[in-house]
Amino acid sequence: MSHDTQLHGEIEALAQRAKAASEKLRTLSTAVKNAALMAMAEALLTQQERILAANVRDLENGRTRGLSEAMLDRLKLNPARLEAMAEGCRQVAALPDPIGAVISGGNRPNGLQLQQLRVPLGVIGIIYEARPNVTVDAAILCLKSGNAVILRGGTEAFESNKVLCEVIAQAAEAKGIPQHAIAMIETTDRAATAHLVTMTGLVDLVIPRGGSGLKKSLMEVAKVPVIFAAGGVCHAFVDESADARMASDIVFNAKVQRPSTCNALETLLVHQSIAATWLPVMADRLMTAGVELRGDERARAIVPAMQAASESDWDEEYGTLILAVCVVDDVEAAMAHIGRHGSGHSETIITADYFNAEAFCARLDAAAVYVNASTRFTDGFEFGMGAEIGISTQKLHARGPMGLEALTSTKWVVRGHGQTRA
Amino acid sequence: MSHDTQLHGEIEALAQRAKAASEKLRTLSTAVKNAALMAMAEALLTQQERILAANVRDLENGRTRGLSEAMLDRLKLNPARLEAMAEGCRQVAALPDPIGAVISGGNRPNGLQLQQLRVPLGVIGIIYEARPNVTVDAAILCLKSGNAVILRGGTEAFESNKVLCEVIAQAAEAKGIPQHAIAMIETTDRAATAHLVTMTGLVDLVIPRGGSGLKKSLMEVAKVPVIFAAGGVCHAFVDESADARMASDIVFNAKVQRPSTCNALETLLVHQSIAATWLPVMADRLMTAGVELRGDERARAIVPAMQAASESDWDEEYGTLILAVCVVDDVEAAMAHIGRHGSGHSETIITADYFNAEAFCARLDAAAVYVNASTRFTDGFEFGMGAEIGISTQKLHARGPMGLEALTSTKWVVRGHGQTRA
Repeated sequence: MSHDTQLHGEIEALAQRAKAASEKLRTLSTAVKNAALMAMAEALLTQQERILAANVRDLENGRTRGLSEAMLDRLKLNPARLEAMAEGCRQVAALPDPIGAVISGGNRPNGLQLQQLRVPLGVIGIIYEARPNVTVDAAILCLKSGNAVILRGGTEAFESNKVLCEVIAQAAEAKGIPQHAIAMIETTDRAATAHLVTMTGLVDLVIPRGGSGLKKSLMEVAKVPVIFAAGGVCHAFVDESADARMASDIVFNAKVQRPSTCNALETLLVHQSIAATWLPVMADRLMTAGVELRGDERARAIVPAMQAASESDWDEEYGTLILAVCVVDDVEAAMAHIGRHGSGHSETIITADYFNAEAFCARLDAAAVYVNASTRFTDGFEFGMGAEIGISTQKLHARGPMGLEALTSTKWVVRGHGQTRA
Repeated sequence: MSHDTQLHGEIEALAQRAKAASEKLRTLSTAVKNAALMAMAEALLTQQERILAANVRDLENGRTRGLSEAMLDRLKLNPARLEAMAEGCRQVAALPDPIGAVISGGNRPNGLQLQQLRVPLGVIGIIYEARPNVTVDAAILCLKSGNAVILRGGTEAFESNKVLCEVIAQAAEAKGIPQHAIAMIETTDRAATAHLVTMTGLVDLVIPRGGSGLKKSLMEVAKVPVIFAAGGVCHAFVDESADARMASDIVFNAKVQRPSTCNALETLLVHQSIAATWLPVMADRLMTAGVELRGDERARAIVPAMQAASESDWDEEYGTLILAVCVVDDVEAAMAHIGRHGSGHSETIITADYFNAEAFCARLDAAAVYVNASTRFTDGFEFGMGAEIGISTQKLHARGPMGLEALTSTKWVVRGHGQTRA
């Protein structure tokens, strides 16, 4: 038996067990799920030593393999980070259960009683990278929404993820959650993820949280539905009528506050009539904070200290302290630029003009459009969902921050007394 | 330039034009869309002669190519069928516009005002077979939901579809609908559909309405989201406590009333304790109506006139007057059978037992589950949606009958006054 055949067999067996668990999860009461979530919180704290010991092994492996200090920091667990994970469990327990919610319905003229109910999807695969807290986040959101989960974390956090998964799965089972409802792919072989996305009939959804390399490799082979927790090329357009200070604060916040996130700013568009006065001050503030600016010709004519932007800069998700800057004629030109180069994530206009604000909101095709606010707010917690499994820039099923509802499907239940169709 | 390269270029140009049209459609008022729909209704009647003349060419071609009488009947247009299409336009005009509906929102503690709005998907491709009325149905549902549509009908109806598309597109444009909002692929080359499902960035959704051959061929190559208007292996379970007459009427209706539809019955499951008395009467009624029965051993022991079912019969969507029959131990065995062989479309239980009815509704994983009613009701009109583009058995985005909402996405609009993230 070839290596791949054996691996595929193992992954399929894992998915079969997850599917069997999902059939029991489907009808589990909210009380049982919440009790399990509270027990998971407890277990993360009582089994702290075991988890931290596994984490030390990952950190040692990471140092040997020459991981950067930033990577090692993302990987590192400590009592405070475990308490944050436990608090996450408690918060998800406190959220309303999406399952069983009646989202539409009523009686038909023939007396049929219709209800459209929220139901779990079934089995969800989550693929993610270094941070081990995602293991817990993903597991608790899938559990609360009645789904079995197959976790596949990054190689760097393998030991931590394995123990975290064991700890929470055992705590959940002790409270009546079916065995195999929280499963982990215990190999770092990339062929495992490639196979996971082909198992139609066993896996209902795969959510990859990772870079464009992962996205591309999975898109080639995926047969099951995949929602990418996608990157963003987010824009801010500073209109002619913008309040200069407000515009500066929003642009600064969107670029600098946490540049590695997908809702951070990548391109600044400035109305030509405000550029000469506003842009030099803004550029100074950004450069002082260590931001590298890459401007088009008109921007560089105003701020010569900028690098020259190349055509590819307009499509770049820097994810770091670099900002592309483009001077545009008006709101129409700004929207045209975003239409060509935007990734459909988050766009903001800073303006005092009502009609420009309304045009920007109505005509741009993106998951989130803002007036006079930072793009950094595109987030499940900030939008009041209480939790987030990722941010979708796809248009089907879920768009924008994905909370518990994004992990559900619907079902029609129809009660009658002998109705037949004429 | 190869044939395929040229074809791909043409399809891409068509999609580019549709995308440009979709950007204008996105913000069109309900009044303009409704006026266009009413004008389309009018045009279908005033240009009746031209449409019927094209249809005669299709019918002649069909006869030459030896199409069956049933196929020719599906293909045939007449004044009554054109009036039905016109009435469809008027009915869709009368439906509420899904676009712009606020589906969630509120103010955040920091004063941000959130609204989650329904927006069009953009460009939708519809692939369908013989019946030319689908050309009009698909176009009007896409128009009402603010989407551009790319139509690809069956070869048999090519002339009819071409003229229908011209007539309604012209009528729509005269009322302010952008040019190319209703487009048709004017080739019957199958490579065109294969290319249509690969154009990510241009096409937002493709809905194929056709057999499993079409489904399989598209699934191999699809890169854009595809929702198959899928087939169904629908079950009826007649429980021990079922009212005999009600069970007979529901089973007869579900199988016989229109066997070619996807919500028609394919497998009858009968509780062992009722089978000896109920099944012979039911079998007699069905066989008298021309239904061929294929039973398992226990069913044939009761009704020896049945054919023997083979293992593959349990997975078969006959689409005609054939019914598989299986005697089962109880509701658990019935649900296990449906779990193994169901396609997740529509399932019904005929019972007087409250707990069996509730278990059937809660535990079966299907788009629609019924108690004491015919599976034939799974339909957009019967569910009160006013229209239907197809029935989805997928779990993401849309499940069950797909009305106007299934053709929409959502967008977050966030209004602030300078908020930045802490």
